[in-house]
Amino acid sequence: MLKVVKIGGNVVDAPEKLSAFLHDFAALPGEKILVHGGGKVATTISRSLGIETQMIGGRRVTDERTLEVVTMVYAGGINKRIVAALQAEGCNAIGLCGADARFILSHRRSPEPVDYGFVGDPDGINTELVELLTGAGYTLVVAPITSDGKGTLLNTNADTVAQTVATGLAAAGVEVELVYCFEKQGVLRDIQDEDSVVPEITERDFERLKADGVVDGGMLPKLENAFRAIDGGVKRVVICSAERIASPGYGGTTLRKA
Amino acid sequence: MLKVVKIGGNVVDAPEKLSAFLHDFAALPGEKILVHGGGKVATTISRSLGIETQMIGGRRVTDERTLEVVTMVYAGGINKRIVAALQAEGCNAIGLCGADARFILSHRRSPEPVDYGFVGDPDGINTELVELLTGAGYTLVVAPITSDGKGTLLNTNADTVAQTVATGLAAAGVEVELVYCFEKQGVLRDIQDEDSVVPEITERDFERLKADGVVDGGMLPKLENAFRAIDGGVKRVVICSAERIASPGYGGTTLRKA
Repeated sequence: MLKVVKIGGNVVDAPEKLSAFLHDFAALPGEKILVHGGGKVATTISRSLGIETQMIGGRRVTDERTLEVVTMVYAGGINKRIVAALQAEGCNAIGLCGADARFILSHRRSPEPVDYGFVGDPDGINTELVELLTGAGYTLVVAPITSDGKGTLLNTNADTVAQTVATGLAAAGVEVELVYCFEKQGVLRDIQDEDSVVPEITERDFERLKADGVVDGGMLPKLENAFRAIDGGVKRVVICSAERIASPGYGGTTLRKA
Repeated sequence: MLKVVKIGGNVVDAPEKLSAFLHDFAALPGEKILVHGGGKVATTISRSLGIETQMIGGRRVTDERTLEVVTMVYAGGINKRIVAALQAEGCNAIGLCGADARFILSHRRSPEPVDYGFVGDPDGINTELVELLTGAGYTLVVAPITSDGKGTLLNTNADTVAQTVATGLAAAGVEVELVYCFEKQGVLRDIQDEDSVVPEITERDFERLKADGVVDGGMLPKLENAFRAIDGGVKRVVICSAERIASPGYGGTTLRKA
């Protein structure tokens, strides 16, 4: 079973955690793909360059200069640092963003009702590229920048990138598992209590958890992506701590259709 | 014949020239690889981030923070902008740096007599990767960042990267042509006179031109790389203007063994 593993920005921002995670990831058996988020470096650099971060409803607007910064930081700085570290762990990594080889084509999100700027929503993936590279023994490391195929790069949510890659491969007949790794132990019933992990969530549970306000904030789009992956034929979706990637079954929360 | 084409930082820095060049490059028939230089963006960003550029004998020292900046700018910002532009021209580009898939392994340059910091000299290339990707119809776009395979990224001269790629492929039995594109018409007898292009230079001519002081500065390492490529079995090496890449024979200066 091919694994698509996503690590969040909080892990990327913590050098020791990232290094421990990459050590474990490199040792995972079988074909695997790593999708990484951004972290705070882009915000720090934007500020140093005098680019004001514009937020609408808690979400960052990607103007032209911000797009340049996130492309540099995500597809250059972070991506190549991860690739070099995986190489040192004996994992033959190849770093790409969605623009490379038309890997992930996307369209710019409609400016109505809210114009988030150069933000893209993916339409699909180049499965032949994945088969070519994984078949030759390479491990893809994917930065969350995509392109519309017409010359415009687009900032793209990394959870959505991971879901798109997993779903695209499942549609091509590949057995896929999707693992969202982040700084918490899983979906928590009580956000303050790391021992309150919900071990399993079905789509019906998800509706109830939403209604009860147990899941909100950044967890909502993550779970929506998770269920989209299950609907798209991905065999297994898990949300767990980056520290558990080497554990059997990963601990954390497993998502189920019903 | 596979073409390895290198464009210099001056072209990368000029949006209209770069765009015209990429239009012409995309239309070149046959297998091809593009290697790009850095340009001034890294210096501008370093300055904004408060990183002092340290120079020794006219050459930049790559300290740890400078390495982070050049990795972001070369392998992220510039590389993906070129990839997206080539996609729009119908050329299915895939952007890589030397660290990806152990494409170009290098060793850190000895700190004696001068310590240039995180600067790498290449040892060779992963020819199987090139055959896999060009065979599948992709055009490699290469940023001049390499790695020692042990986790350290290294800033690497783009002329040397292009020569290493060309020589590595020639050694694997591929017929290769190496084209250095820059802002001048070729090697000039009189640096002030763009009409004074030397059409052909042999290794013996090169020694005389050096002794006469006709070639110096940045042209010296470029010509040294060019002759190293010829010695390494590259069929044809040309130094020409980026504006001539679509012209038959490219104009400019052709290097010959004897």
